[in-house]
Amino acid sequence: MMYVTRRETFSAAHRLYNPSLSIAENERVFDKCANPGGHGHNYILEVTVAGETDPVTGYLVDLKKLKELIRKEVIEKVDHKNLNSDVDFLVGINPTAENLAKAFWTILSQKMNGGTLFSIRLRETENNVVEYRGA
Amino acid sequence: MMYVTRRETFSAAHRLYNPSLSIAENERVFDKCANPGGHGHNYILEVTVAGETDPVTGYLVDLKKLKELIRKEVIEKVDHKNLNSDVDFLVGINPTAENLAKAFWTILSQKMNGGTLFSIRLRETENNVVEYRGA
Amino acid sequence: MMYVTRRETFSAAHRLYNPSLSIAENERVFDKCANPGGHGHNYILEVTVAGETDPVTGYLVDLKKLKELIRKEVIEKVDHKNLNSDVDFLVGINPTAENLAKAFWTILSQKMNGGTLFSIRLRETENNVVEYRGA
Amino acid sequence: MMYVTRRETFSAAHRLYNPSLSIAENERVFDKCANPGGHGHNYILEVTVAGETDPVTGYLVDLKKLKELIRKEVIEKVDHKNLNSDVDFLVGINPTAENLAKAFWTILSQKMNGGTLFSIRLRETENNVVEYRGA
Amino acid sequence: MMYVTRRETFSAAHRLYNPSLSIAENERVFDKCANPGGHGHNYILEVTVAGETDPVTGYLVDLKKLKELIRKEVIEKVDHKNLNSDVDFLVGINPTAENLAKAFWTILSQKMNGGTLFSIRLRETENNVVEYRGA
Amino acid sequence: MMYVTRRETFSAAHRLYNPSLSIAENERVFDKCANPGGHGHNYILEVTVAGETDPVTGYLVDLKKLKELIRKEVIEKVDHKNLNSDVDFLVGINPTAENLAKAFWTILSQKMNGGTLFSIRLRETENNVVEYRGA
Repeated sequence: MMYVTRRETFSAAHRLYNPSLSIAENERVFDKCANPGGHGHNYILEVTVAGETDPVTGYLVDLKKLKELIRKEVIEKVDHKNLNSDVDFLVGINPTAENLAKAFWTILSQKMNGGTLFSIRLRETENNVVEYRGA
Repeated sequence: MMYVTRRETFSAAHRLYNPSLSIAENERVFDKCANPGGHGHNYILEVTVAGETDPVTGYLVDLKKLKELIRKEVIEKVDHKNLNSDVDFLVGINPTAENLAKAFWTILSQKMNGGTLFSIRLRETENNVVEYRGA
Repeated sequence: MMYVTRRETFSAAHRLYNPSLSIAENERVFDKCANPGGHGHNYILEVTVAGETDPVTGYLVDLKKLKELIRKEVIEKVDHKNLNSDVDFLVGINPTAENLAKAFWTILSQKMNGGTLFSIRLRETENNVVEYRGA
Repeated sequence: MMYVTRRETFSAAHRLYNPSLSIAENERVFDKCANPGGHGHNYILEVTVAGETDPVTGYLVDLKKLKELIRKEVIEKVDHKNLNSDVDFLVGINPTAENLAKAFWTILSQKMNGGTLFSIRLRETENNVVEYRGA
Repeated sequence: MMYVTRRETFSAAHRLYNPSLSIAENERVFDKCANPGGHGHNYILEVTVAGETDPVTGYLVDLKKLKELIRKEVIEKVDHKNLNSDVDFLVGINPTAENLAKAFWTILSQKMNGGTLFSIRLRETENNVVEYRGA
Repeated sequence: MMYVTRRETFSAAHRLYNPSLSIAENERVFDKCANPGGHGHNYILEVTVAGETDPVTGYLVDLKKLKELIRKEVIEKVDHKNLNSDVDFLVGINPTAENLAKAFWTILSQKMNGGTLFSIRLRETENNVVEYRGA
């Protein structure tokens, strides 16, 4: 089995907040991440596709097309945006790294054109990373 | 001459906007950085101090004390904050990387306890960096 | 399945040496790593937890708590220490990266509070890494 | 299960081109990678071996020997070379990252001396990576 | 004084060779870099501009414009190219990192639109870097 | 002016301790770095040479020769060693990063064969760096 990974980056603001919890509970659970004015990150997104190598091209997928797909479907919608208010596919979702990875999986898994989506890896800071491999 | 550098990181939201310009001018100058909902970054701050090595300790400065100074005077005030609204020493300042570096210089240059502040280097993204060495 | 990884670092001295082998055998097996005065590394530890995302918090685990757990149970005991002589849970263990990863697994797998410990990854140098996923 | 990874680097020129396709098809499929004069990369190769830790040495494999094996069998043959013309084990192979990873797997999997080859990971640029785990 | 740096990358093939030297002299001086089939690198280019911060924008230069300038004048001409044969401004120049840095300086120093070009830094491998600050 | 930098790494143990100070003073000044069993680091050494580019070779210095010089004169003497006890040129020197940089400067500045030694940069951890540019 071959795995091909494309890395993209975006910069966004967010605030962790669950409206079904009280303010005090939000502060207890999310601590400084619940700051009302928000904060932000340079996110690093790594999309991994699994499959077989095409004997004619020697590619699993054309990384140029994978790059364009990720940029069109994800990066252009989240880069230099506020993840709580500006992104249609995140409305009503608390933008934790886990929930972002799942949302990106939902979008990209439906658009794969060659290969199978294997993993969405999202690095929020140099010390915190999440990875989602599907339900 | 010896130079000692301490690296710290913080995550913050910001929006580039000059209230003395029109909305259209702000969008023209700051482009997607003027997004009303803001965006954010993992900033990497490198503070460089210059001076002579103390013959008794073999230190230019005690990096543990420099770390504590930077964290107390800068990091705790900007980490997980909105740079447009949450930071007292940035009120009225458009939070470009250049302006942030100057503001950090103003604060830290007055607090040096051993050595002379030489440079404030602020990496906003993996591709964009500013450095300020004083007026 | 979701995977969440926390990265921490520590700096320690060690020497590779098995007292049941002769000095000549230790030198043959461990080469320059058997230097009697020891050497040291900036270790990078990555702890990965697997599980399901909590629908209320949007977290698999609270990374702040995972950070505190790793620091209390591992980092504070090995950082700025000699791994051959200073660490109670390493007594009698030859501190290869493999053995360190196993020892950290034993400690952390018993303390998980949410999620299942999936992997201990330990980078000893920029070129040498080990990963342990349990027995 | 324990996994041990050794990282090595090499710098090489290549051109993506399949002689069974027309020039126009090559340009369509491989785009700027089909440039007749070629281009090149600093490749990062990560070889991962899986197995059990030896209770006497505390090693899964001796990383010094793994390093020497990778350098002798792979790095010395591809470093500062043209991958289309200069490497005997790549004759007739279109040097995509996928095909390189498979070719390195074929060579190294036959030479393992302790442990089982688990993965060949090849980073072609900071944004593009492939990983092969065998047929 | 403020310094602003933009980082860009490109991948290219090259061969070090001075036609005024004999083949034996070329091999003696350039060693494996003189391989007739060439080799290649992922180059990292860092362009630093010096000047004063504009009080209206809070920018030294608009990094978006600096990015576009570097891409148009340099990156598009060298990325996925052979530096010995494919680049008009390098004809007759032995493409050492030093000579590339000087050539990029010549081009960019004439195009600065705000700020003064201060430094061209070119990383050829993770271990080898050159920096040119003008004649 | 051209600047060329070579990066090398080494792994060593050390303990910060000044025998002319009391044990209590050593602990106060050097804190956990004074741990009697020592600790260690993966040091990153960057040696920068300044000068003019040779018009025949296009090199400021032959980086292969600079690499061999650094390895022979510095790396082989400190790698996998204890900096307090195992290195002849460090006898009687408290091995702070500042003192190491000075000691490496003294050795290398006398051996330059082409170009002038400009800077010794020593990264002790990912957050702490020193740079020495001569007396």
